[in-house]
Amino acid sequence: MNRPKHGGNPSWAATVAGCSPSLILDFSASISPLGPPSTALAAIKLHIDNLTNYPNPDYPELCQAIASHHQIPARWVLPGNGAAELLTWAGWEFSKLNTTLLPTPAFGDYWRSLQTFGTRIIERSMMMDDGEIGDLDFALRHLPTEIPHSLGLIVNNPHNPTGQIWSQKTILAYLSEFELVVVDESFMDFLPPTEQQSLIPFVAEYPNLVILRSLTKFYSLPGLRMGYCIAHPDRLRRWKNWRDPWPVNSLAAAAAIAVLGDTEFDRSTWDWLAAARSRLFEGLKQITGLHPYPGAANFILVRSDRSVTELQTKLLEQHQILIRDCISFPELGDRFFRVAVRTISENDRLLVALRSI
Amino acid sequence: MNRPKHGGNPSWAATVAGCSPSLILDFSASISPLGPPSTALAAIKLHIDNLTNYPNPDYPELCQAIASHHQIPARWVLPGNGAAELLTWAGWEFSKLNTTLLPTPAFGDYWRSLQTFGTRIIERSMMMDDGEIGDLDFALRHLPTEIPHSLGLIVNNPHNPTGQIWSQKTILAYLSEFELVVVDESFMDFLPPTEQQSLIPFVAEYPNLVILRSLTKFYSLPGLRMGYCIAHPDRLRRWKNWRDPWPVNSLAAAAAIAVLGDTEFDRSTWDWLAAARSRLFEGLKQITGLHPYPGAANFILVRSDRSVTELQTKLLEQHQILIRDCISFPELGDRFFRVAVRTISENDRLLVALRSI
Repeated sequence: MNRPKHGGNPSWAATVAGCSPSLILDFSASISPLGPPSTALAAIKLHIDNLTNYPNPDYPELCQAIASHHQIPARWVLPGNGAAELLTWAGWEFSKLNTTLLPTPAFGDYWRSLQTFGTRIIERSMMMDDGEIGDLDFALRHLPTEIPHSLGLIVNNPHNPTGQIWSQKTILAYLSEFELVVVDESFMDFLPPTEQQSLIPFVAEYPNLVILRSLTKFYSLPGLRMGYCIAHPDRLRRWKNWRDPWPVNSLAAAAAIAVLGDTEFDRSTWDWLAAARSRLFEGLKQITGLHPYPGAANFILVRSDRSVTELQTKLLEQHQILIRDCISFPELGDRFFRVAVRTISENDRLLVALRSI
Repeated sequence: MNRPKHGGNPSWAATVAGCSPSLILDFSASISPLGPPSTALAAIKLHIDNLTNYPNPDYPELCQAIASHHQIPARWVLPGNGAAELLTWAGWEFSKLNTTLLPTPAFGDYWRSLQTFGTRIIERSMMMDDGEIGDLDFALRHLPTEIPHSLGLIVNNPHNPTGQIWSQKTILAYLSEFELVVVDESFMDFLPPTEQQSLIPFVAEYPNLVILRSLTKFYSLPGLRMGYCIAHPDRLRRWKNWRDPWPVNSLAAAAAIAVLGDTEFDRSTWDWLAAARSRLFEGLKQITGLHPYPGAANFILVRSDRSVTELQTKLLEQHQILIRDCISFPELGDRFFRVAVRTISENDRLLVALRSI
């Protein structure tokens, strides 16, 4: 079995660890350990009897629930079969432009969505000459000047895999430079409201701005596929005409509506994350040879003095623990890994394991 | 609320009928009234606890279940988020060819999938000069000759909305004429095995042949989104690299595996359909002004001497019954409607209603 490109593939890990996939303690997928919320499961069970009907292609209740959550009108909302399906249509939009800039390291699926439709990609590395990781401004410090009005930009905020959060102001400064800016905010909901830097409040002002959001990670439902896009209604109408009529399954729609009203789950997530991430960060910092990066999301990027492939294999074989190697991020390679923040006791188990090998 | 383009949108119907959507007797969506099978619901319930994991992007168990069902190797199978998602990728393939031929009337989503990527479409009408409906050979009687090696063809067998079934031989005769032939067999499973004319046994021989199948209609689970594609492994690898990594939600995958082994449900469907369709056909034939067409699928196309828009509205207002008008099929227009075959008592209710207005 090949080493998987994405995190969250415990069957590969189980083969290496020699145990059943359910016994793997998975730090490779950046999924909250608190979910799924009971409100989501109740909604799913309630709607099982309704599967004999096609979803309404307009998904009116779902759009309204998302719109209310962000206090915007419903026609600025397009739900998707996970954020990944919406990336496909972002890719089709980008293919109509001359060139798209992609700050790297970046989520592998951005290349997929751009390459599918033959978009010309210019990668802009965040890595500095000394091997340290720069930021968005560093990556975009020289913009191409010859073709000013046909450029696209895809940005991830908070940024995966570094965990960096960029201010609204930082990204807004680039909006006049690009014909299309897609901001993937799949991890934004992990920040408490006062710390979020979402650009959703600015979509009305910038018709060239597209926000992608996921409900998969925060609510621990990656098996159900729930995401959405917020952008100008004209653009969303176009996307809707491009794709199939029923991309979101009824159970995902029902669960999404339920969780968007579950403020108690939101609060408990923010409480858990701040405490658990800080404790895990400190623990990692104290292990010789490991250098964690401070981050705003529910994962931590770590630089390692030792080979990560070797570390990953040992953690699997000796502890049934799966970490995310960074081989698929060429800028990072074998000296970096990423771990999800899990419950405090699970994080401690990871720390003990890391100390022991 | 606008009149919907597709069948199966009872919220529009409920507004016209002045009742709750759940009270509408829906003949507009061609969904089996027997399902969903209890095996599907059990599988869904069993897998709800597993939604915290990403689906395996290779969907190995699902591919194997589909492959075993058709007695082909698993690498010839690609599952999709309903057949409609796979139509998107068929459309992207077609866009690389010079021109695609589309026999009409046809399912509206074929245009969507072709137009999204700017494919040049040549429609070939099955309608004859006297207003009667011809067949596939009639529609394709003159093939374009100037550009022989860059032509695509998309065919639906059994054909929606006419219900015609074309023999394997009929379609195979066209395979040497086209660079890509997509056969949408979404309704093929409604025929008993001895009557099926599936081209799945021929994919190994024709690398330019793509078969689309749906599990939505036969197993009454349109809310869950389940379909698949059978074609040459090289082509499927390409499609897989184009689309997002997790298009099929885990519950759809689990339900699909369960129903593909449910031979008892299959048999009861074939028994019900043969009897119910024949009784409904005879009943429709005896109503003055209605002219049903014999068909092989789980629906019947009917020509009407009266305006169908008017008939549809009266059926909704007076009987809470929804039939599928054919306004979205320009060749058919206001003088045709389509009805799903439902249970014998529901079909009888439709016949009584049609006789009364």
